[in-house]
Amino acid sequence: MLPLLRRRHSTLTTSLDRAKRLAATRAVRENFSPAHNYIGIGSGSTVVHVVSSLLQVATANTTFVPTGYQSRSLLLSAGLRVALIDEVPPGAIDIAFDGADEVDPAGNCVKGGGACLLMEKLVAVNAGRFVVVADWTKISTKLGERYAPGVPVEVLPAAASYVMSRLRELGATPVLRSGAKAKAGPCVTDNGNFILDAAFPGGIEVADAAARIRGIVGVVEHGIFSDADRKADVVYYGMKDGEVLVQGIIQ
Amino acid sequence: MLPLLRRRHSTLTTSLDRAKRLAATRAVRENFSPAHNYIGIGSGSTVVHVVSSLLQVATANTTFVPTGYQSRSLLLSAGLRVALIDEVPPGAIDIAFDGADEVDPAGNCVKGGGACLLMEKLVAVNAGRFVVVADWTKISTKLGERYAPGVPVEVLPAAASYVMSRLRELGATPVLRSGAKAKAGPCVTDNGNFILDAAFPGGIEVADAAARIRGIVGVVEHGIFSDADRKADVVYYGMKDGEVLVQGIIQ
Amino acid sequence: MLPLLRRRHSTLTTSLDRAKRLAATRAVRENFSPAHNYIGIGSGSTVVHVVSSLLQVATANTTFVPTGYQSRSLLLSAGLRVALIDEVPPGAIDIAFDGADEVDPAGNCVKGGGACLLMEKLVAVNAGRFVVVADWTKISTKLGERYAPGVPVEVLPAAASYVMSRLRELGATPVLRSGAKAKAGPCVTDNGNFILDAAFPGGIEVADAAARIRGIVGVVEHGIFSDADRKADVVYYGMKDGEVLVQGIIQ
Amino acid sequence: MLPLLRRRHSTLTTSLDRAKRLAATRAVRENFSPAHNYIGIGSGSTVVHVVSSLLQVATANTTFVPTGYQSRSLLLSAGLRVALIDEVPPGAIDIAFDGADEVDPAGNCVKGGGACLLMEKLVAVNAGRFVVVADWTKISTKLGERYAPGVPVEVLPAAASYVMSRLRELGATPVLRSGAKAKAGPCVTDNGNFILDAAFPGGIEVADAAARIRGIVGVVEHGIFSDADRKADVVYYGMKDGEVLVQGIIQ
Repeated sequence: MLPLLRRRHSTLTTSLDRAKRLAATRAVRENFSPAHNYIGIGSGSTVVHVVSSLLQVATANTTFVPTGYQSRSLLLSAGLRVALIDEVPPGAIDIAFDGADEVDPAGNCVKGGGACLLMEKLVAVNAGRFVVVADWTKISTKLGERYAPGVPVEVLPAAASYVMSRLRELGATPVLRSGAKAKAGPCVTDNGNFILDAAFPGGIEVADAAARIRGIVGVVEHGIFSDADRKADVVYYGMKDGEVLVQGIIQ
Repeated sequence: MLPLLRRRHSTLTTSLDRAKRLAATRAVRENFSPAHNYIGIGSGSTVVHVVSSLLQVATANTTFVPTGYQSRSLLLSAGLRVALIDEVPPGAIDIAFDGADEVDPAGNCVKGGGACLLMEKLVAVNAGRFVVVADWTKISTKLGERYAPGVPVEVLPAAASYVMSRLRELGATPVLRSGAKAKAGPCVTDNGNFILDAAFPGGIEVADAAARIRGIVGVVEHGIFSDADRKADVVYYGMKDGEVLVQGIIQ
Repeated sequence: MLPLLRRRHSTLTTSLDRAKRLAATRAVRENFSPAHNYIGIGSGSTVVHVVSSLLQVATANTTFVPTGYQSRSLLLSAGLRVALIDEVPPGAIDIAFDGADEVDPAGNCVKGGGACLLMEKLVAVNAGRFVVVADWTKISTKLGERYAPGVPVEVLPAAASYVMSRLRELGATPVLRSGAKAKAGPCVTDNGNFILDAAFPGGIEVADAAARIRGIVGVVEHGIFSDADRKADVVYYGMKDGEVLVQGIIQ
Repeated sequence: MLPLLRRRHSTLTTSLDRAKRLAATRAVRENFSPAHNYIGIGSGSTVVHVVSSLLQVATANTTFVPTGYQSRSLLLSAGLRVALIDEVPPGAIDIAFDGADEVDPAGNCVKGGGACLLMEKLVAVNAGRFVVVADWTKISTKLGERYAPGVPVEVLPAAASYVMSRLRELGATPVLRSGAKAKAGPCVTDNGNFILDAAFPGGIEVADAAARIRGIVGVVEHGIFSDADRKADVVYYGMKDGEVLVQGIIQ
């Protein structure tokens, strides 16, 4: 009986929204199996369509593992069975569906626009298969070039200025994410931390950036999903023309 | 060296911004004394003008007590001396300046639009004098009638739906505040809690509402500032015509 | 798959442990019904026995609502079905079982020795019936006289010294609870707050103390369970001699 | 005006306590300079002696940067000037003094017995010189062999079981740290996280273990202080016989 949050996006079926829906539908159709016990569910606007599609096919045996308050609320209000990640044996999630802010040809992603990157990554690394659903605006040839705010980095509040100085040494121009209209001061994550949005002009070298950012004291997690932890196994892009582009990842 | 957040509001000197500035200037001129040791500083856009004015008059002996990350950042970047509320003897704040979302003729306020109500109230109850700076849009004849979102109520996340049901029994239509563009899911406060915005159609009976809301299990604090804890001693309203209306409160 | 914490208490069947076990067994036998959908489960050493007894009788339809990490872990490791409090409709818990640190003849309790008082009270106020299981050392004629540390009060960390000063005005001698051997500095609750243990020499007037402590800014919750929120409907005391004393509460 | 916590250790001048005191006195004498602007202060029982020694020599220009509530409380009650780490320019701490749970000949440390490892590491990496004060029981030839509980690892609560499974793959036997007598369930850190104590039978290869543990999703920080972030520049050991052993670290 979690209170429902009002949708952050218009419910008008815009072309973008339609593209996401079509991609979500196909991603579920091609990847869901009734044999799945645990299904991870990411956060954000695309995931709303994933859950709608899963509602058609989920069985009584399927348990869903959310990545934050928004996706937990979405699942509970849909009447689906929910378990928290720590109730599931390590590695036991059969498949996880999630969105992304930017994806490169190898399936590396930038995630965290919705500030849920830590739980999203925790679910992803516990999943046997990681399926990303996106739209054509997320297609990138090099990570960092497409999603303007850059790499979201979750930090201990007391470490924000130190981590910013270290990110600048790595060539980034980090900004402390504000609470927007919701609160004065910085955005606070579900874990009580802050988010730095670290733009890297010219894009990033994925492996190098992931390792260096992870190594900074005060960084709780960053939004680069790559081989260092978990990249996408397959990506479904809803295209402008109504088609769905499936990018099978060469491992 | 706290990272500065970008201003949430346009820096254009709109008539509203000018009104706030004029009110802040006069509030500081008429209430600040070099004998003050500790000055509480609230949160929000109006307080930016208060700090600008205080910069002209503060002495080396003045220590400022912020009510959250935003005001602490503002004070530190202005080079002012800052102490956290728990470093100050109970009751030792000489004067506190703050904004408000709605103020009635008796000096009762609704606060919390910026989600800092708990620390703001903690500073206010420790202050010998509580000065509110506002503009003409905050003038209310009955609390609840003017500020559309209603009374902000900070709640333990797990208690959100229970508190909402209790608020409905009191006649409110509560909404869980979303994270807006900053995050998926609900807004999280500096204290790791959620905010319910509880509109009371027809307004509230201040004393009754304050007591009833405070008594709900799971409520950490609410945004009604009244005799139950602390109302304004004086209010400075910047008016549309450039005047400043001073509302001395009859105790 | 939550990691199990080692028991805090010896597993030797001491007379105290045996008394708790006998009281728990009878409390479950006399209060559990297969018609119950939701059963609240408190925290602490006594509750371990309650869960053991419930394991014998729970049906596939019973869902358990824990009051913290310890009781959630206990329920999950017992293979019971668990729901968080915010997944349950407000007021829909049929019955809640919990321990207490001190109980008076009217069923008023002091709770919070295990620092879980906020979630315990949230579950209690959502329960149709509140059953307390205790032992003879918890029997009190006047609250405050028996449990030496006094009333646990959960506070915002920044408010600790202010709340202590206010508690002293009420006649208490509050102490900030230390992290014991687990951490340097104060104990931190599951909600990120501190605990003050407020001894009231001579005991407390329940209604008055509950109202006054709840009204202090910075107090998140206190450990007095009374008519102001929820007192016990019935108490089962395991006695030294192996008997179980049942104290039906006169409403 | 932070409330003082009762000392966790006996105030009897035991030989261990005396050893710590002597080491602290010499560490301060040989490393403090009146030219220092910012001095980092760690957590734990040894640091109490460091602060006592610094009280003799600190000037009005010295600002102290604590690593948690305990050391902040200690500094404030000593009347010293305190700044939080985020008020200090990155890297501007001249020197930091701290204790350790185990130290090897190269100055690598295991820290975190007091659950403050994250803030301690954040202060250490911002310090020009990192001085460790310990006693003879902390001398180790290989990290992991001496301090029985093993490497403290701070984790997101939801990630505890996943991180435990990953630590087991690395050869550790991790235990979720309990709240001891202070609370039911796990110890919660000042940052709202849990602590895993990961014993590595046979000890650890420092660089390898530090990198692997840091790379696990859900790990916020670990207690290995090494070249990967910051090891000791010099260590002062109070010995059983009253001598102080100074271990200058060969860089």
